[in-house]
Amino acid sequence: MYRSHTCGELRETHINQEVTLSGWVQKVRDKGFMVWVDLRDRYGITQLIFDEERTPKQMMETAENLGREFVIQVKGSVIERESKNNNIPTGNIEVLVSEITILNKSKTPPFTIENETDGGDDLRMKYRYLDIRRNPVKESLIFRHKVSIEVRNYLSTQGFIEVETPYLIKSTPEGARDFVVPSRMNEGQFYALPQSPQTFKQLLMVGGMDKYFQIVKCFRDEDLRADRQPEFTQIDCEMAFVEQEDILNVFEGLTRHLLKNIKDVEIGDFPRMTYDEAMRKYGNDKPDIRFGMEFGELNEVAQHKDFKIFNQAELVVGIAVPGAASYTRKQIDALTDWVKRPQVGALGMVYVKCNEDGTFKSSVDKFYDQDDLKKWAEVTGAQAGDLICVLSGPANKTRTQLSALRMELAERLGLRKADEYAPLWVVDFPLLEWDEETERYHAMHHPFTSPKTEDIKLLDTDPGKVRANAYDLVLNGNEIGGGSIRIYDKDLQALMFKHLGFTEEEAKAQFGFLMDAFQYGAPPHGGLAFGFDRLVAILGGQETIRDFIAFPKNNAGRDVMIDAPSKIDDEQLKELNIKLEI
Amino acid sequence: MYRSHTCGELRETHINQEVTLSGWVQKVRDKGFMVWVDLRDRYGITQLIFDEERTPKQMMETAENLGREFVIQVKGSVIERESKNNNIPTGNIEVLVSEITILNKSKTPPFTIENETDGGDDLRMKYRYLDIRRNPVKESLIFRHKVSIEVRNYLSTQGFIEVETPYLIKSTPEGARDFVVPSRMNEGQFYALPQSPQTFKQLLMVGGMDKYFQIVKCFRDEDLRADRQPEFTQIDCEMAFVEQEDILNVFEGLTRHLLKNIKDVEIGDFPRMTYDEAMRKYGNDKPDIRFGMEFGELNEVAQHKDFKIFNQAELVVGIAVPGAASYTRKQIDALTDWVKRPQVGALGMVYVKCNEDGTFKSSVDKFYDQDDLKKWAEVTGAQAGDLICVLSGPANKTRTQLSALRMELAERLGLRKADEYAPLWVVDFPLLEWDEETERYHAMHHPFTSPKTEDIKLLDTDPGKVRANAYDLVLNGNEIGGGSIRIYDKDLQALMFKHLGFTEEEAKAQFGFLMDAFQYGAPPHGGLAFGFDRLVAILGGQETIRDFIAFPKNNAGRDVMIDAPSKIDDEQLKELNIKLEI
Repeated sequence: MYRSHTCGELRETHINQEVTLSGWVQKVRDKGFMVWVDLRDRYGITQLIFDEERTPKQMMETAENLGREFVIQVKGSVIERESKNNNIPTGNIEVLVSEITILNKSKTPPFTIENETDGGDDLRMKYRYLDIRRNPVKESLIFRHKVSIEVRNYLSTQGFIEVETPYLIKSTPEGARDFVVPSRMNEGQFYALPQSPQTFKQLLMVGGMDKYFQIVKCFRDEDLRADRQPEFTQIDCEMAFVEQEDILNVFEGLTRHLLKNIKDVEIGDFPRMTYDEAMRKYGNDKPDIRFGMEFGELNEVAQHKDFKIFNQAELVVGIAVPGAASYTRKQIDALTDWVKRPQVGALGMVYVKCNEDGTFKSSVDKFYDQDDLKKWAEVTGAQAGDLICVLSGPANKTRTQLSALRMELAERLGLRKADEYAPLWVVDFPLLEWDEETERYHAMHHPFTSPKTEDIKLLDTDPGKVRANAYDLVLNGNEIGGGSIRIYDKDLQALMFKHLGFTEEEAKAQFGFLMDAFQYGAPPHGGLAFGFDRLVAILGGQETIRDFIAFPKNNAGRDVMIDAPSKIDDEQLKELNIKLEI
Repeated sequence: MYRSHTCGELRETHINQEVTLSGWVQKVRDKGFMVWVDLRDRYGITQLIFDEERTPKQMMETAENLGREFVIQVKGSVIERESKNNNIPTGNIEVLVSEITILNKSKTPPFTIENETDGGDDLRMKYRYLDIRRNPVKESLIFRHKVSIEVRNYLSTQGFIEVETPYLIKSTPEGARDFVVPSRMNEGQFYALPQSPQTFKQLLMVGGMDKYFQIVKCFRDEDLRADRQPEFTQIDCEMAFVEQEDILNVFEGLTRHLLKNIKDVEIGDFPRMTYDEAMRKYGNDKPDIRFGMEFGELNEVAQHKDFKIFNQAELVVGIAVPGAASYTRKQIDALTDWVKRPQVGALGMVYVKCNEDGTFKSSVDKFYDQDDLKKWAEVTGAQAGDLICVLSGPANKTRTQLSALRMELAERLGLRKADEYAPLWVVDFPLLEWDEETERYHAMHHPFTSPKTEDIKLLDTDPGKVRANAYDLVLNGNEIGGGSIRIYDKDLQALMFKHLGFTEEEAKAQFGFLMDAFQYGAPPHGGLAFGFDRLVAILGGQETIRDFIAFPKNNAGRDVMIDAPSKIDDEQLKELNIKLEI
């Protein structure tokens, strides 16, 4: 038996007990006549004590020579600590060691195993197994486990069945790029790894499974952006005999359950907003509504003077930045520079200071008088002391730019509070989106999303205006989930494929099995998927997902710890009937 | 709203309520003046009634023309049924329909959607989404879900953390063949899909995670045998600071919990048996101990006469088949033929009938007298009325043959009862096994399994005799799990690699990251993995796993429903820098 207790367990009630502990040496403090060792395991830290009077000489020496991260086992008795440590639960006791065994030595670790480490990202990733020993990473992984247990038990209680769908499936060119797997037994053929279990969950609905979920790995071979991973985890769900309202209610319930049980935050009904409204008010289909700064459209009150830039713009739009009237010229110039960065791309910024005395001072005083500016303040909701920032240009672009500015300022002003949670449903997404590159419409979600019945007639005349039965769940400015009511009628599905530019043959080759299935009594159905990595990160009060994944890959898709991907044997290639072509 | 209740929900207490149901048409019985429709969903079947007197003519016609598997929605009132059906929970009521909507028509399904179907395996697999509508398949998938929830909650309560390990990892030639995934971003390099998360779970132990588990898909590119799948699911576990005893206790607890909560079967301490004993007593490292028929070794009592076949054999061994003394000559000849089939490979079989009157009649009466045969009966534990079957030859081969005969006879005699559960730990597996083909020793489990300390000295002199700290959990003659205490010392690990024929360079290239990790304070650790598909099947009282997997592949590794694997675009191949070579 390696231990009678963990390193997080002993309290004053254990005093005088003989115990056995095992763990890692966190720290050794050697006062000569006395040696203290902090012993660490997953559960906490317990102080060990060796002293000249009570400890044999040889054991003193062993203790003095312990290195950081040595693995040891000790036996000893629990005694009261002279100077108590209120920062840790075991701080009232220590263990007077009577026996010590070094189970394994350790080289000096390449970075400190502390909450704040001196290791950079690259080093931490290479030695991820050491990084995981650090509390922030370890606790994030434990937190992830807790969330997954809550999700599974909640959905299970609601009658959902977790069904494992296959990982070795079929490649379809629609959507992102697939990872493929050459088949040795089927010469010249490939499996694909799933980008999501979309078609399988629909087939489960056709199969009468009624309520399905799965916490499942998905794969996308995309050029990685920051904070994206080639393999990621989804909470994937589907329900039969439901309308949009049923789905929103179930997953609002799940999210409320998680917030209550994990964060002790009670939230009532989630607000809903159409995609159009979100774009108009926040320039963003995943607005952070923890704070205001809603967009005010200024065309009516700003295009009546001689200011050409505004007069020629499709949209003039501003936000009121709370308390920022006091910004210096230099600060405002810096803001202007910020929106002019290529990542944002505005051509300039107009500002209005709303002075405490009710007067206004703007960068366009040459064109607009106090009455004009007062109207701008009304439209943007600016109060005395606020700063109005105004951008102009093509409507969509300008909204995106102002949204970026809004988020940046909120971050700087501390309005994006990690302990505040503001969920929001964004509904009525467009069915199709225009792709400049291929000059055709693509499905905004996927080709199985159903159009709103009343909009189907627009498919021929004004496809961009067709709304879908599609919805996203947004939490604190992050899309954490999205889904739709699916098409379950084979004729409507065929019509959709046509509008997405599939020939009948292409549709049949790629989705024939789904079209076939729809001929045998498909029920109305719909569902959604939550991005689990992000959901966990946000619930954990963070916005980057990396520390909530045990072994993440870097931005080149590499696992630097195990050094994957890597070359494989010629023998293996030959068996797979493939050849490198470099 | 598509339904107010499910089709399994209505009882007498609902009589006179107006309800809305949706589901599939299971059956239409048309008496002319009356039409009954069985409406089915995941939850059950409810009878709908339409009759001349109370139903409008047009609706009668709609009802009469409903086809099997049409998806319909009905409104109506719950009424008491005249002739009640005690076989289904809703059998006391029916719904008098006032409104009917056909939500989706269905072609006639290619096989009947009944508990016993007329569809063969191939058809069922091609239309798996219809097969899933059948109760036996649907219930198996729901059962699987229940087991997974129990496993997760039990392990979670025991302090285990579920950690997701990566799917895109590194190929290692040891073990079975890997599926590989070409990397587009890392030219000429490949990921591999994990055969198990073995190294990652060991790294999690090095990382201080202490108790890990995961229900996880694993992949092996093997030539498929019956009832094997290229992707399969494991309950994977690992613990730090443990000895073999700790691990056996935890997973005995899990198995006991599952048997109690899922099958309402209470089982005390699981028996344990060494590998050697299992082989000697049952000729099998996964013996079914629900019934006796233990091997009796007859060398001492059968090699003293002139029967050359026995005298020259390394082993003479028999079993007592209960009540089989009454077998006719023809039946016994058939048994002899059975053991002589190439799949078993015995050269012949000797039998002894233990007559009810205490006398014996054998096929070798020419060589052995009644006293001899009485001793055989004593050694094999045969009673009056039993038949002793004796095989002889090289020890290992003969044991395997007799084991096959034992299992076959138990099956025929109905001794392998589906509702009886007999778990068993088999311990002290050999560390190494001799491979005839490559003429060297291979790791019986994997290269990280620790040898028993007292046997390490035999590594040089008698490697085949070295026992490992390795154990299997056997349930009803099936191995449902196995594991070992791992090596955590880098020197011992290096020694093992040497004995397995790895050069230092090979070991470093393939497992360098693990060897590196072991230098930074690896704790003693060990674990095990349960084959989840098989565990669920056995708990479900079956021995084939296929119906406990939603979308299984066939023996050629194909998913015949979606037709995968399949060809991919030249464009895709080019991006991946590979070329077919056929």
